[in-house]
Amino acid sequence: MAIKSEQEYRDRVSKLRPKLFIGGKRVEDLTKHPVTRSVIDATARVYELTLDPRYTDTMQSVSHLTGEPISRALHIHQSRDDLHKRLDMARLSSQKLGTCNYRCPGNEMLPSLAATTWEIDHDKGTEYHRRFNAFLKYAQENDLVVSGSVTDPKGDRSKRPLEQDPDYYVHVVEKRPDGIVVSGAKQHATGAYAADETLVLPGISCRKGEEDYALAFVIPNGAEGVTYIGQYNPFSMERECESDLRVIGNPVYGQRETCLIVFDRVFVPWERVFMCGEVEYTQSFITRFAKTHRMNCGGACKVGFMDLIIGATQLMAEYNGLPNVSHIAQKITRMLQLNDTSLACATAAAFMGKEEPAGSGVFMPDETMSNIAKLNTNDGFWEVMALAGDIAGGVSVTMPSEKELDNPETRDYVMKYLGAAAPAHKRMRIIKFLQNWVAGLHGVGTYQGSGPSQNQMMVLYRIADLEGKKRMAEELANVHA
Amino acid sequence: MAIKSEQEYRDRVSKLRPKLFIGGKRVEDLTKHPVTRSVIDATARVYELTLDPRYTDTMQSVSHLTGEPISRALHIHQSRDDLHKRLDMARLSSQKLGTCNYRCPGNEMLPSLAATTWEIDHDKGTEYHRRFNAFLKYAQENDLVVSGSVTDPKGDRSKRPLEQDPDYYVHVVEKRPDGIVVSGAKQHATGAYAADETLVLPGISCRKGEEDYALAFVIPNGAEGVTYIGQYNPFSMERECESDLRVIGNPVYGQRETCLIVFDRVFVPWERVFMCGEVEYTQSFITRFAKTHRMNCGGACKVGFMDLIIGATQLMAEYNGLPNVSHIAQKITRMLQLNDTSLACATAAAFMGKEEPAGSGVFMPDETMSNIAKLNTNDGFWEVMALAGDIAGGVSVTMPSEKELDNPETRDYVMKYLGAAAPAHKRMRIIKFLQNWVAGLHGVGTYQGSGPSQNQMMVLYRIADLEGKKRMAEELANVHA
Amino acid sequence: MAIKSEQEYRDRVSKLRPKLFIGGKRVEDLTKHPVTRSVIDATARVYELTLDPRYTDTMQSVSHLTGEPISRALHIHQSRDDLHKRLDMARLSSQKLGTCNYRCPGNEMLPSLAATTWEIDHDKGTEYHRRFNAFLKYAQENDLVVSGSVTDPKGDRSKRPLEQDPDYYVHVVEKRPDGIVVSGAKQHATGAYAADETLVLPGISCRKGEEDYALAFVIPNGAEGVTYIGQYNPFSMERECESDLRVIGNPVYGQRETCLIVFDRVFVPWERVFMCGEVEYTQSFITRFAKTHRMNCGGACKVGFMDLIIGATQLMAEYNGLPNVSHIAQKITRMLQLNDTSLACATAAAFMGKEEPAGSGVFMPDETMSNIAKLNTNDGFWEVMALAGDIAGGVSVTMPSEKELDNPETRDYVMKYLGAAAPAHKRMRIIKFLQNWVAGLHGVGTYQGSGPSQNQMMVLYRIADLEGKKRMAEELANVHA
Amino acid sequence: MAIKSEQEYRDRVSKLRPKLFIGGKRVEDLTKHPVTRSVIDATARVYELTLDPRYTDTMQSVSHLTGEPISRALHIHQSRDDLHKRLDMARLSSQKLGTCNYRCPGNEMLPSLAATTWEIDHDKGTEYHRRFNAFLKYAQENDLVVSGSVTDPKGDRSKRPLEQDPDYYVHVVEKRPDGIVVSGAKQHATGAYAADETLVLPGISCRKGEEDYALAFVIPNGAEGVTYIGQYNPFSMERECESDLRVIGNPVYGQRETCLIVFDRVFVPWERVFMCGEVEYTQSFITRFAKTHRMNCGGACKVGFMDLIIGATQLMAEYNGLPNVSHIAQKITRMLQLNDTSLACATAAAFMGKEEPAGSGVFMPDETMSNIAKLNTNDGFWEVMALAGDIAGGVSVTMPSEKELDNPETRDYVMKYLGAAAPAHKRMRIIKFLQNWVAGLHGVGTYQGSGPSQNQMMVLYRIADLEGKKRMAEELANVHA
Repeated sequence: MAIKSEQEYRDRVSKLRPKLFIGGKRVEDLTKHPVTRSVIDATARVYELTLDPRYTDTMQSVSHLTGEPISRALHIHQSRDDLHKRLDMARLSSQKLGTCNYRCPGNEMLPSLAATTWEIDHDKGTEYHRRFNAFLKYAQENDLVVSGSVTDPKGDRSKRPLEQDPDYYVHVVEKRPDGIVVSGAKQHATGAYAADETLVLPGISCRKGEEDYALAFVIPNGAEGVTYIGQYNPFSMERECESDLRVIGNPVYGQRETCLIVFDRVFVPWERVFMCGEVEYTQSFITRFAKTHRMNCGGACKVGFMDLIIGATQLMAEYNGLPNVSHIAQKITRMLQLNDTSLACATAAAFMGKEEPAGSGVFMPDETMSNIAKLNTNDGFWEVMALAGDIAGGVSVTMPSEKELDNPETRDYVMKYLGAAAPAHKRMRIIKFLQNWVAGLHGVGTYQGSGPSQNQMMVLYRIADLEGKKRMAEELANVHA
Repeated sequence: MAIKSEQEYRDRVSKLRPKLFIGGKRVEDLTKHPVTRSVIDATARVYELTLDPRYTDTMQSVSHLTGEPISRALHIHQSRDDLHKRLDMARLSSQKLGTCNYRCPGNEMLPSLAATTWEIDHDKGTEYHRRFNAFLKYAQENDLVVSGSVTDPKGDRSKRPLEQDPDYYVHVVEKRPDGIVVSGAKQHATGAYAADETLVLPGISCRKGEEDYALAFVIPNGAEGVTYIGQYNPFSMERECESDLRVIGNPVYGQRETCLIVFDRVFVPWERVFMCGEVEYTQSFITRFAKTHRMNCGGACKVGFMDLIIGATQLMAEYNGLPNVSHIAQKITRMLQLNDTSLACATAAAFMGKEEPAGSGVFMPDETMSNIAKLNTNDGFWEVMALAGDIAGGVSVTMPSEKELDNPETRDYVMKYLGAAAPAHKRMRIIKFLQNWVAGLHGVGTYQGSGPSQNQMMVLYRIADLEGKKRMAEELANVHA
Repeated sequence: MAIKSEQEYRDRVSKLRPKLFIGGKRVEDLTKHPVTRSVIDATARVYELTLDPRYTDTMQSVSHLTGEPISRALHIHQSRDDLHKRLDMARLSSQKLGTCNYRCPGNEMLPSLAATTWEIDHDKGTEYHRRFNAFLKYAQENDLVVSGSVTDPKGDRSKRPLEQDPDYYVHVVEKRPDGIVVSGAKQHATGAYAADETLVLPGISCRKGEEDYALAFVIPNGAEGVTYIGQYNPFSMERECESDLRVIGNPVYGQRETCLIVFDRVFVPWERVFMCGEVEYTQSFITRFAKTHRMNCGGACKVGFMDLIIGATQLMAEYNGLPNVSHIAQKITRMLQLNDTSLACATAAAFMGKEEPAGSGVFMPDETMSNIAKLNTNDGFWEVMALAGDIAGGVSVTMPSEKELDNPETRDYVMKYLGAAAPAHKRMRIIKFLQNWVAGLHGVGTYQGSGPSQNQMMVLYRIADLEGKKRMAEELANVHA
Repeated sequence: MAIKSEQEYRDRVSKLRPKLFIGGKRVEDLTKHPVTRSVIDATARVYELTLDPRYTDTMQSVSHLTGEPISRALHIHQSRDDLHKRLDMARLSSQKLGTCNYRCPGNEMLPSLAATTWEIDHDKGTEYHRRFNAFLKYAQENDLVVSGSVTDPKGDRSKRPLEQDPDYYVHVVEKRPDGIVVSGAKQHATGAYAADETLVLPGISCRKGEEDYALAFVIPNGAEGVTYIGQYNPFSMERECESDLRVIGNPVYGQRETCLIVFDRVFVPWERVFMCGEVEYTQSFITRFAKTHRMNCGGACKVGFMDLIIGATQLMAEYNGLPNVSHIAQKITRMLQLNDTSLACATAAAFMGKEEPAGSGVFMPDETMSNIAKLNTNDGFWEVMALAGDIAGGVSVTMPSEKELDNPETRDYVMKYLGAAAPAHKRMRIIKFLQNWVAGLHGVGTYQGSGPSQNQMMVLYRIADLEGKKRMAEELANVHA
């Protein structure tokens, strides 16, 4: 069967030896380092959910290539219903993990690759689509974790790739009979070091003359010349130094872990190259990826996170003895409104989706709606954080360590004074869980993931039918030339 | 054919003689008074759109009672697709009228009546559903305008119906063998005096002991004992006193016109009574009406209005010579975001709709999503108004009359000084059109139509699965009793 | 005594015969036309308040030219305390009038004229300041109403004055030995036709080559060549056509009435010219006017309006029988917050004010704070409107005419159904009063008066000490080159 | 001289041995533990600023008890000017520390103690004020760090102190001839373990019967029976575990460090008791403290923080090569608006302050304005964080450790790819500095410090002159009984 178990994934990942650095030090064993282990545990949990009979419809699909059951994480949407189920998968994973579903980012690139390689082949007689399908079939049959990376470091943002150090954007440095050699780097690559494969898409819409940058390909984990440099922040250090991981906010699955992937003359065989030089298709690649990504990661994924935050906030209100206070209920309702708005937009994006390009069989969400989903989530998530922090109270940033509960000199004090309408050990657990949401990486992470608001604003303005709206107003106002 | 022409409607309405007062005076002829004529013209335009081949799919449907083509305004939703097309009808009408589609309010009551009468009969062996279907068939076959009214005057809001003057809520004052006699009043009844029939639903969820208030029925226009008292405001006076209606903001279709309907011992034959005394079903009546109403009137209708405002605002920017200024584009984009958010929520409400009650064949929109549609529109519409007024400039409230263009002493001055990158006559027309939106009744009208935000907030809180969210948070945070 | 009575003003204004058109028709007698009479009544009320012993400290000051008591409306701020009292005057007038204090706009130009004419004379040896002081003494001694106008029609906003019809901005068309001849127009001139004098300031920061546009002067009411074209909107028509003005929202004082002033070769003697050609001072003229205007009209004046709206909204809640409902109290509190924020900013602008230019004796409010006052009021006022409309309910746009209370066929119905916890006649009065605020000209009027937000944003960005803030961050973050 | 040097403070604090636990372990030496050392370094910096001649006017004052120069941190406001300078001190400290000025919290209690002890003595002939002045003179003469604590753990918030475990609020457990014995705890006590003295005020407005809770007193650091339990979070761990503190966001001064102070039968001699049993004065104690605290900590302190955030954000835009992009300038301007609004409100609070109670000589800020300052800052700060995170980009949460710059295997990659229009080492420093603001404790900390919004909303509503506003509206609307 093409769907693999959690254990099969764990076995596979235990053999990976990527050149990875975190906090200035080499990570020798992904399964041992507390930060990388959280990525593996989260990914493994997704495998587990996929085989959980309660979630079959959400987590599994059928391959359009083989007709076999596959993980939905490797599926190409064939219908609006597929888009809608994909959204359910994102929400469910978020509810269960409270962090990134590390199979998402690659998955969101697959439809863009399927559609755009089909289109290039159709227009130009290339063989990108065949290569892509071969890769996809391989990934589906082995149920691989496919990561994806798109954002280049960019250097000076006022300059194009060729106006500064050429490596600021991933590009071809050499073409050989058997493949290409690429250099550059990608930022914010989520979970890449624990994935089987990493897809690379262009991070900029290329112009004529920038052919070397019009690139799409896939590399296996730890390919020669690839270095991964992991993010590092107070939460990394907390996980790295904490002797008892049970006292961490999200104890098992932690934060979304990303890395900088450096490509230092990495060889990619032609069979794994899905675009090379066709600058006129880079915009399509990006747009199709972006609208899929913004429906799921930008919208539905964060709905699952907000479900968790709302649940924890309501618990905290109850633990404080205030289950039914009017202003708290108003604030909880506002959180629900923000959450449901994100869900509405993602849902509309799925139901208004359509085949694109016509004939390709690939379904894409509606572009306006997926951008709206992301845009509303950007601000909504910050407001949900603020409201959760409002109800949780100052203790969500001033709480002592739960380890005081094991400290004979302080435990009685902490048991008493951190308790309220619920005992201290429960209340401290929820406070710490909320701290993880309201006083950490999630505000910026949510806002920036799949692009900041200005990106969506630009899309909205560009694709809006302003001319049509002008005509309606003129007609009704009775404006004549 | 069951679908009637605009002219057939005009002929029918010209014979109506409701007892109607506007501005303290009796209106003798609906077709002559400038205010009531705007209601007739708007309604007639909806008939015209219904027979326009470009809009057949949106404006027409097929009767589930007769299998004949009918106006969608008299259709009972049989599927999610029906819900989605209903939403398109609301948006299209708003784009074409810039005011109320006067066939909407009644239409939004029909599914609630169909579902709830079916349910009462099913539970209690009554014959309300048969009566309702007979009425509906009659309305469909004659393509009638069916108005609806729900909001009682309520008097002192801290008191129940029986704690104050009994007439503050519509109620039965006498039961006879052939029918009932009702008294009370309904506020905000949109276009009722120019409709063929008016449906009356309970405006409050009744409790045991309030059986006389648990009432649903329909009356023909101008029934004995009915008095209509029209709204009156500066826009009424403008329309009433203006010699040249072309200089009014929405020249033909005007404002949404409502009235207070007074029922002073009005007789209703049993065949037209659809509930009488079943207090336990009043909440269902209201909830089903509200969720349909909030998807359409609360959501999609206002999307059409915002389309017009955005179009006019973009025209104004261009007329001012500023088609591409960065901060204006940002503001237009924000308007698009707000508009598309309302559309997303209404769309999700349709696509997440379901049959209710099971077996009735009636489809209802998703309650969370329809309430979210309305809730986002409430605040969004005010913000759209403010942004339009920002870009339109102070002239949108300080502009002289367009009649100065016919005044030999001022016309040259006005032609020059009100012109910009477009000639004065075009620019003044759009300014006046925008004035109608940004400096008039629409802010409050939109906010209050289908209920103020607090109503939707209460629904959201009541139906939210807070327990489910709490369990998810506990599981992930590892909270144990 | 230099302070005149209401009656003296009324006598004076009754002799004015400006060439004024409203709604396409000549206004023959300012004291008879219902629109212009509202301007006179409001202005007269300000005279009355000035002599009311309860308000002496707020409404009167002492002339720095003569040492005599004068109306504060003609005073040049000599201290921070003067700035603060000026702000009190604006708030008090707004509370009493519910519309423009028509002595404000001119008053807000006087300090700018005093300061900038002093500066030009100081730098260039001109005699503008002497002329200005002579005019000011004359105005103070006769307690004149001095209006002011600044906004040119501007035509195509992407073009400078000399790139299009030269009349889009007021300019000199001829210089004579005895004075200058000017042409052009000014928009949004508040109450100018009922004022004794009108000050004209440049509406654009002029560049070299635009000397003809660098102009400041004063003209008496109805000067030869001046035409006034009044604004016209539904509220104008309501006032013009309503037989019983008691049923209007703001019965006596009405809306802020503005006009387009057309200057068609108007002669201005040199003694009344306060700048002519000094392009390098136009920015100072505008900036000094703007910061004074934004503290008062942008800030404090609207605080008085919001006081009225909050009071009426609280009354409406009580009339509805809901004096203490939690969500209403939250909304009232939010209205208070917005109102107090505007007051705080205006107050800070006064207390942080300083003499400018040094040596001139003229005090100016702090520029950042006066711009912040206006900026917060812009959005705050719209939100206050929306909240008032929320609590007032749909009846604030659907209410029948109060004239129905005199209609024997409807009065009993209206008395009953428009009543609640207060009788109908009181409740309808407050509803109509609120309608005037929430469904009319005030949103845009407040936003645009003294310039839209983008203007204040540009000022804030320009004058902010970003370099200082960068240095602080670098120091603390320990950033080294 | 009464003003002590940084070194004198360091010497003093090095001798303190409070019973303090952080992260489950006893802290043996405050000067060695990285977390407590940051508190000492920040406090020492305040001493340094106090003696810096550039800041004399802001940081120093003159004792009203001795006439000697003292630190403003120990001054009782004697005028509006004192209030205004106090606000400057808060802003300056924040700009220099980027964390708590640990002399603030106690300072904000001193005026409340001065005013209320004066009032109790005046009303009841007690000797609290004499005792307080004696303590104050001692503190001034030795230039002590006086901390303050007010928030009790509260337990079940729906219950009063006597309805649950009596220790949830600090209270008298025994009265002796020489003093009182107290038990209970205080949360969120900022920097208390490194202060010389800690003031304790009631955290709840007491009612009759709750006399044991109506308590104000002061204890020296490490008094017998006192246990301090420090806050613990990812930032604590980062500081504790990081070998190179230069790579931390706020390298020297860190986060605001608070603790839970447990009072387990602590003896307080009568001379240090400033209220004991006078329940009717607890509300005054709290209100006076709150309004002082909300002007400074709620308002001005956060203005200094926002200055830093805005400066760092502008640097980041420049480092990215985008110094003048329109949408970034709009966002920076919005940040300025929010910051200046907080400053305006705090400034108005100072300038509208007055002596309270009359005769006491103590000046208090205006209550409305100080609450408005805090209320606007609550939401404003979150928005500033979000905007900073928007401009800083995803790298503000995904950046690798700066220690990679010392890692030979990654340094060249990081030097290249983290660089842009500025070199990587500068850019990473500012990114990390921003991370500290946008992805950490500051959102909740700012919101909750000096009480969450609901507290200020309740004050605003309670003290607003709604009756006055109602009368204005009635008068103008012409409402008669």
